[in-house]
Amino acid sequence: MKTTQEILTAAVLEKQQPVPALAQRNEALMRMADCLLEDQEAILAANQQDLHAAVGSVSEVMLDRLLLNEERLAGMAAGLRALVPLPDPVHRILRDTQSEKGLHIQLEQVPFGVVAMIYESRPNVTSDAAGLIIKSGNVGVLRCGREAWQSASVIVRSLQRGLQQAGLHQQRIQLIEDRTRQSSLDLMKAKGSVDLLLPRGGAGLIQAVVQNAEVPVIETGTGICHIFVDDSADLQKAVQIVENAKCSRPSTCNAEEVLLVHQAIAPAFLPLLQKRLVEERRKAGQPPVELRLDEASQKIIPGTPATEEDFHTEFLDYILAVHVVADVEEAIAHIASHSTHHSEAILTQNSRHAELFLNQVDSAAVYVNASTRFTDGGEFGLGCELGISTQKMHARGPMGLDALCTTKWIIHGSGQIR
Amino acid sequence: MKTTQEILTAAVLEKQQPVPALAQRNEALMRMADCLLEDQEAILAANQQDLHAAVGSVSEVMLDRLLLNEERLAGMAAGLRALVPLPDPVHRILRDTQSEKGLHIQLEQVPFGVVAMIYESRPNVTSDAAGLIIKSGNVGVLRCGREAWQSASVIVRSLQRGLQQAGLHQQRIQLIEDRTRQSSLDLMKAKGSVDLLLPRGGAGLIQAVVQNAEVPVIETGTGICHIFVDDSADLQKAVQIVENAKCSRPSTCNAEEVLLVHQAIAPAFLPLLQKRLVEERRKAGQPPVELRLDEASQKIIPGTPATEEDFHTEFLDYILAVHVVADVEEAIAHIASHSTHHSEAILTQNSRHAELFLNQVDSAAVYVNASTRFTDGGEFGLGCELGISTQKMHARGPMGLDALCTTKWIIHGSGQIR
Repeated sequence: MKTTQEILTAAVLEKQQPVPALAQRNEALMRMADCLLEDQEAILAANQQDLHAAVGSVSEVMLDRLLLNEERLAGMAAGLRALVPLPDPVHRILRDTQSEKGLHIQLEQVPFGVVAMIYESRPNVTSDAAGLIIKSGNVGVLRCGREAWQSASVIVRSLQRGLQQAGLHQQRIQLIEDRTRQSSLDLMKAKGSVDLLLPRGGAGLIQAVVQNAEVPVIETGTGICHIFVDDSADLQKAVQIVENAKCSRPSTCNAEEVLLVHQAIAPAFLPLLQKRLVEERRKAGQPPVELRLDEASQKIIPGTPATEEDFHTEFLDYILAVHVVADVEEAIAHIASHSTHHSEAILTQNSRHAELFLNQVDSAAVYVNASTRFTDGGEFGLGCELGISTQKMHARGPMGLDALCTTKWIIHGSGQIR
Repeated sequence: MKTTQEILTAAVLEKQQPVPALAQRNEALMRMADCLLEDQEAILAANQQDLHAAVGSVSEVMLDRLLLNEERLAGMAAGLRALVPLPDPVHRILRDTQSEKGLHIQLEQVPFGVVAMIYESRPNVTSDAAGLIIKSGNVGVLRCGREAWQSASVIVRSLQRGLQQAGLHQQRIQLIEDRTRQSSLDLMKAKGSVDLLLPRGGAGLIQAVVQNAEVPVIETGTGICHIFVDDSADLQKAVQIVENAKCSRPSTCNAEEVLLVHQAIAPAFLPLLQKRLVEERRKAGQPPVELRLDEASQKIIPGTPATEEDFHTEFLDYILAVHVVADVEEAIAHIASHSTHHSEAILTQNSRHAELFLNQVDSAAVYVNASTRFTDGGEFGLGCELGISTQKMHARGPMGLDALCTTKWIIHGSGQIR
C-alpha cells in the first residue's frame, strides 16, 4: 500500500512539471472516457463487491448512490467527453497593462496545483472530479468513502491508463489507498502539499473538513433553500414551482426545504398547495409531501405541526416546512437567520419586492419566479460543475473550471527599479 | 465601552441595508478626508499620547510606524480622495446569459458584507482600510493594536463624522473598543457575523489569525522574496536591481531577502555586488548591507557565514542571504522550498530560462528583469491596495477593491421549472 505521504509527494513532483498543452489534456479526457468503457466489466464487478459489502450497513438511498450500471458508466464517460469542447481555463490573461515605467504586467489564470477531494460513496464523482482536474491543468488526489473504494480503485486505474495513453503521467490522478480516517486528516493538514481541498458529501463530512483543515477549503453543498410566495404571486405558477423545487429530486442540495408564504395570500395559496403536493400526488402514485406547518398555516390546512428545528433542517426528502410571514421584509429576515446561503426564490409580480429580495438575500443564487432546482453548473452555462460553493470566498454557487484556478502576476521588465 | 458583540450586531444590521449608491459612497470618501484634516490637532494630540505610552516598550522602527505628523495625515486624506475616481466594484455584471428555458442568469459582483481587519500600530491603516471598505460597499469593523488605539479612536470618530455628513450611518466603520486579546479572538470566531477577516501586520499576527480563525481569512504580507541572477544576466543592471530590491525600503514585504546566483556568473557578479551594497553604500553614508553567505560565495567575497535559518527568514532589514546555485532549475527548486510565495525575480537574457522561471515559480508575482519592489496595488494598476495576498484562494498579490467583493447569481424567470 502506498502511504498518503508517498502519494502527496508524487503529486507535488507532478505539479512542478509544466502544465500540459490543451490538446494533450483534451486527448487525455477522450482516452479516459474510452478506458472507462473498455473496463466496464471490471468496474461493474468491483462495484458489486462494494455493494455486497455495504448491504445491511447503509441506507437504501446510500446503496442507490453507490450503485453503478452500464447506463451510469456511460454517463461518466460522456461527462469526461463533454469537458473537451470547453474553453481552456489555463493561461487566460485577465489583466494586461503597460506601466508608466515600461513594465509589462499581466494577471494570468493558472491551475491551483494539487487539488484534493474528500467525498463519499458516489463512484461517478471519481471520474467527474478527475476530468475537471485534468482539464484545468491541476494534479488530483482523491479520497473516496470506504464503501466505494473497490469501485473507485478500478475506476482510477482505468483513468490512469487513459492519462498514459495521452502521454501524461498517471500520478496526475491518484486515489488515496489508506482507507482509515487518518488519511482524511492527513489531507486536511497537508499544508504546502495540498493547494485546495474540496469536501463533497453530507453536512457532517463538510463540517468536519471545514473545522479541521489547515489547507484551503471550499465549503460546498448544504442547502436549506427557501421559496417565498409573495401576496402578488401567480398562484398557479407558484404551486408548480414549489412542487418542482421540492419533488423533482429531493435529495439534491438545490431542492426547496422551507416555504414562506405571505399572510395575505396564505388562505388562498395553502389549500392549493396541500391539494397538489399531498392529495394529487398520492392519487397519482407519487410520494406525497409531508407538510410541517407553523401555527398560522395549521389553521388553514392539515399537516404535521412544525418544530423550530424543522426550519434549520436540510430534509433531502419529501418533507416541506411551511411558515407564514407578514411581508417580504419578514421573509428576508427569516432567510437571513435560517438559510445556508445556497439558493432562495421569491415568487411575485411586484417588481419592488423582487428587487428588494434580490438585493437583500445574501445567498449564492437568488431567483425571481423560478425553481431553485436550476442552481447547477450546466444550467448556469459553466458546462459542468464540481459542487456548489456556499461560501463567499473565491467561488460562489456552481463551481466550474475557473474555480479550480488561481492567478499569478507575470511581470516582464528591462531592468526597472522602483 | 461597547462590547465586541454590540459592535458586531450593529455591523450586521448595517450590512442588511441596501448598498449606498456610488455617488453617496464617493461623497463619503471626500467628507472623510475633509474631517481628518479638520481634526488634525486632535488626531496628532492623540498620537502623541500613544507615542509617549509606547516609548521604551517598543522598538524604534515600531515608534516610527506609530508616528503621525501633518505630512502623514495629509497622505491619509489624499489616499481617501484617490479612491473616488476608481470604477465602482459593486453591481458589476461578470456573466450575463439567457438559458435555453428563458431564464435570465447574471453573475453580479457584490460586497462581502462585514469586513473585519486586525492590524498593528500604523494609524494610516485605519483610514486606508475604512476608505476601501466604504468604496466597495462593505461595512467595516477595525481592531488596531493597543499601541495605536488613542490615535485610531480619534481617527475613526473623525471618519464617522464624514460618513454622517454624506448621509451614511456611522456604524459603517467601527473601531473595536475592547483592547484585550479577547476582542481579536472574538472577531476570529464570529462566524455568521464577519464575512471576511483581514490580518495585516507581522508574521506572528498573521499566523495567529490563520490558525485560530473560524471566519474566512485572507493571508497577507509575509515576503521572503528571491532574486535569481542567471548566467546570462546583464551584470550592471543586476547590481542595480538587487540594490533597489534590498535597500529602497527594506521593511516592506516586497523587499528582497535572498539572492540566488548562477555558479558560472558568481565569480564576476559577487564582487560587483559586494562593492556596491557594502563598500560604496558605506562611503556614501548609506546603511551597508550585511551579506550572509553560503559556502560557495564565501570563497569569492567577504561576509557573514549564512546559517540554514537565514534562508527561511524575512529580515526586513539591511541583510541579504546569498546562495550560489548550479542552474535555473536549482534556483526554482530552492524557491519552491523556501519562498513565502510573495514575489520572485529572474535576471536573465535567456528567454527559455525566463519562461521556465515564470511558469514554474509558484508565487503571487513573478518577474523577469525587474525589482520585486514593484509588487504593489498602485504599481499594478489597481489604484490602491489593502495588503498583498500570499494565498491562492480568492485574491492573489496586491488586493484592490475587487478583493473585497464576492459574487451572487441573480436569476430572473417567468415561472420556469426544471
